[in-house]
Amino acid sequence: MNIIEIIAKKRDKKELLKEEIAYFIEGYTKGEITDYQAAALVMAIYLNGMSDEEITNLTLSMAHSGEMLDLSIFGKNVVDKHSTGGVGDKVTLILAPIIASFGIPVAKMSGRGLGFTGGTIDKLESIPGYCTNISIEEFMENVKKIGISLIGQTLNLAPADKKIYALRDTIACTDSIPLIASSIMSKKIAAGACNIVLDVTCGNGAFMQTEEEAKKLAEMMNRIGKLAGKETVCVITNMEEPLGYAVGNNLEVIEAVQFLKGDMPEDVKEVVLELGAYMIKLAGLGEDIEKNKQTMLEKIKTGESYRKFVELIENQGGDTTYLENTQKFEKANYILEVTATQEGYVSKLPARDIGELSGKLGAGRIKKEDPIDETVGIVLRKKKGDFVKKGEVLAYIHASEEEKAKQAVKELQTIYQIQESKIEKDKTILNVVM
Amino acid sequence: MNIIEIIAKKRDKKELLKEEIAYFIEGYTKGEITDYQAAALVMAIYLNGMSDEEITNLTLSMAHSGEMLDLSIFGKNVVDKHSTGGVGDKVTLILAPIIASFGIPVAKMSGRGLGFTGGTIDKLESIPGYCTNISIEEFMENVKKIGISLIGQTLNLAPADKKIYALRDTIACTDSIPLIASSIMSKKIAAGACNIVLDVTCGNGAFMQTEEEAKKLAEMMNRIGKLAGKETVCVITNMEEPLGYAVGNNLEVIEAVQFLKGDMPEDVKEVVLELGAYMIKLAGLGEDIEKNKQTMLEKIKTGESYRKFVELIENQGGDTTYLENTQKFEKANYILEVTATQEGYVSKLPARDIGELSGKLGAGRIKKEDPIDETVGIVLRKKKGDFVKKGEVLAYIHASEEEKAKQAVKELQTIYQIQESKIEKDKTILNVVM
Repeated sequence: MNIIEIIAKKRDKKELLKEEIAYFIEGYTKGEITDYQAAALVMAIYLNGMSDEEITNLTLSMAHSGEMLDLSIFGKNVVDKHSTGGVGDKVTLILAPIIASFGIPVAKMSGRGLGFTGGTIDKLESIPGYCTNISIEEFMENVKKIGISLIGQTLNLAPADKKIYALRDTIACTDSIPLIASSIMSKKIAAGACNIVLDVTCGNGAFMQTEEEAKKLAEMMNRIGKLAGKETVCVITNMEEPLGYAVGNNLEVIEAVQFLKGDMPEDVKEVVLELGAYMIKLAGLGEDIEKNKQTMLEKIKTGESYRKFVELIENQGGDTTYLENTQKFEKANYILEVTATQEGYVSKLPARDIGELSGKLGAGRIKKEDPIDETVGIVLRKKKGDFVKKGEVLAYIHASEEEKAKQAVKELQTIYQIQESKIEKDKTILNVVM
Repeated sequence: MNIIEIIAKKRDKKELLKEEIAYFIEGYTKGEITDYQAAALVMAIYLNGMSDEEITNLTLSMAHSGEMLDLSIFGKNVVDKHSTGGVGDKVTLILAPIIASFGIPVAKMSGRGLGFTGGTIDKLESIPGYCTNISIEEFMENVKKIGISLIGQTLNLAPADKKIYALRDTIACTDSIPLIASSIMSKKIAAGACNIVLDVTCGNGAFMQTEEEAKKLAEMMNRIGKLAGKETVCVITNMEEPLGYAVGNNLEVIEAVQFLKGDMPEDVKEVVLELGAYMIKLAGLGEDIEKNKQTMLEKIKTGESYRKFVELIENQGGDTTYLENTQKFEKANYILEVTATQEGYVSKLPARDIGELSGKLGAGRIKKEDPIDETVGIVLRKKKGDFVKKGEVLAYIHASEEEKAKQAVKELQTIYQIQESKIEKDKTILNVVM
C-alpha cells in the first residue's frame, strides 16, 4: 500500500478499502503522509465523493486517531448531543441538566468556539469558580456521583480530524457534506456515547444554508452512525434568526438559567424539547416523543432540572449564588438601547449578521488564543413577526467601549428589517431524520 | 485575488482567468502559495480539466516563471525539436547536425535523463572533451559562428514547471494530458524557438501508451503552440520496441555517428527524416515533405551532415578522432552474447523492458545526482519480424560486472518473444498532427 496509489484510486472514482483509509489517516496523523498528498486526496474526495461505507471508515479511522473516551461503564443509555452551530445556541446548558434529571448519565466534553460567540465551555466559565479543566478521572467520578459533568476537551480526541479540518479550510474543501459529516461524527464517536442526537442547524446563521443541504447532511450522519453501530437522530432546526433572545457568553448563561427557572422563549423551548425527547427515547426511557416532552416540562416546572444544574455548577466549583440571582453576573460597561426607526413588523433578523456583530463586540474569537469578553453581546427584545412602534426598543447592545457600543447600535438598526404588513414567525423544527 | 478562491473556481469547473493562473504560478514559484494548495488545485485541474485558453495561459505563465532564452537574433527560422521520450532515442544527436547543414540555426539546450538511459547531454558527454556546460554568451557565439550548439540546461528555464512536475509525481497527477502538454510546451517556449517539431512517442516504452492518447497529447500541444504564436508540428512515432539497435550512452553515440556516415537503421531513418522534413518546412526552406527528405538523404550521402557533426563536437572541445574511429570509445568490461533459445520470428521486444534492463545495467539514473555509466547498455541484433535460428545472437549485453552481465543475459532472453509464424514489423511513423 502507498499513498500515491490510494490517491490514484480515489482520483479514478474507485472505492477505497477500509485498510487504505486507515493507512492514510494513520500516516497523516503521524506526519508520514505530507500535507500536499492529503490535500490532493481530500480534493479528489470532494470531487468524486465517497460511498457510505467509505465515509464510515473515514469517520472511524479519524475517531480512533487519538485518545477515546470510554463511557461504557455508565451503561448503554449514555446519549450525546451536538449542534452544527448557530447564533444564540445555549441549548446544551439547558438540556444537559434536564437529561441528567431523568437519571440519564451526562458525560460531555464541549469545545470552545471560534467565530460569533464562545462555545459551551466559554459560557460555563463565565460562572465564577466553575472549573472546565479537570482530569478525566475526576470527570468520571462526577458523573458517577451526581450523574452529570461538563468539561472542556481534556483529551486529544480525533487529532486526524483536527488536521484535516484545518487543511480543508486552506484548499476550498470546507463545504463538502461527506467531509463535514465524518468530521462531526468522528468527534462524537471518540467522545464515547452509544447514542447521539444531533441538532442540524439550517439557515443563514448556520453552516448549512438550505433545508435540502441540512437534510443531506443529517441523512449522511445518520447512515454513518448506523454503520458505526451508534443510534443516531438528527433534528433539523431553523437558524435564520438567533435562537432565543440572548447572544453573548454570560448573557446566554443568564437566559439558560431563566429557562430552567421556567421562563422559556418559545423557539428555545421547541428545540430543547425536541432534542431532549429523542435523547430520552434513545436512552430507552420513553418511546413516545410527545409524552417525553411533557415529562421534561414537568421536571422544569418542579425545579428538578434547575436543581440538577445547580448541583452540576456547585460540584465543579462554581458560585451558585450567581444562579440564584443572575443580577450578580458582571455587566458590560455600556448597555445601549437599539430603537426602531419605523413602525411595523420585524420581517428579518439574519442570524449571521447578529453573530458577526456580537463577534465584533468581543463575544467571539478569531484565533484559538484570542481572549473573549464574557459580558458583551446583544439581547434582543423583538424577533421576526413581532410588532414594533417607532422608537420602541428592539434590542440592547452590551459593549466594553462606548464607541463600539454606538457603532453597534447603528449596525443593529440596519440589520433589523421592518415591514408594514403582518408576517408569521418561522417554524423552529424543520425535520427529524432518524 | 486569493488562492482559495482560485482553487474553489476550478473545483466548481469554472474557467480560470489569465491573471488567476499567473497569480498561482508566480505565488507558487516564490513559495508564497503552499504545496498543499498547489496540490489541491492540480488535482482539481486533473479532474475538471482546462479549456485550451486556460492551458495556454498555464503554459505561458510557467514559461515566464524563470529565465528565457531569446533566439530572435537568429531570425524566424529557428526550429526546436523535442521528444516525449523513449528507449534508444538518439534522434537529436543525428538530426541536429543534419538541420544545421541546411543553414538552419540549431541552438538547443538538452536535459539529462532520468530512468532508462541518460539524456542527450549525457550521451554527448561520452565523447571525451565535449563540454556541455558553457556560458550562454559562448553558446550564442557558437551558433553564430558554425550554426549549431548543443548544451545542457545552463539557464533556469520554467522553474514553475519543475516544481509542479515534481509535485504531480507525488500526488498521482502525472498522466494528465493537459498537464503533460503544458509542461512540455512551457519548456519549449522558454527555450526560445519560434517553431517546434515534437516527436510524440507512443507505445509501451513511452509515456503515452496508445495511439489515441498520443494523438490527444499531440493535438493539445498543437493548440497550445498555435495560441502561443508558435508554429508546431507533432509526429507520432512508434515506441513499442526500442528505436534503432543501441541502448546506452556511448553505444547510442556510436550508432548516431554511423548513421551520419550512412549506416542508417530503417526505423531511426524514418523518424529522423519525418521530423527533419517538418523542421525544414517550418524554417521556410521547403514546403514539400518528400522533397525535404530526399535533400536530407543527399546531405547525409555527401557527408555534409557528418562534417557538421564533427564541427559541432570540435567547436565544443570534443575529441573528433572518436568520431572518425568509433572503436576508440571506451568499452564495457563485459560484453556477452544473448542467444535465441528457439527458432522463429521475433514477435515482441518491449521497449519498456529493454529500458529497465539498461537502467539496471547502470546506463540510467534514478536521482539527479546519481552517476551514469557511459559504456553499459544493450546492442540489439534482432528486432520484431526478424527470423532467428536457435543459438543465433539476438543481442549483446554491455556490463560493468560479470554477475550483472550474466543476469542481464537471462533477463533479455525472457524479454525477447519468438513465435513460429511470420510477423510484420510495426509502422514507425503513426501520424502527423499539424
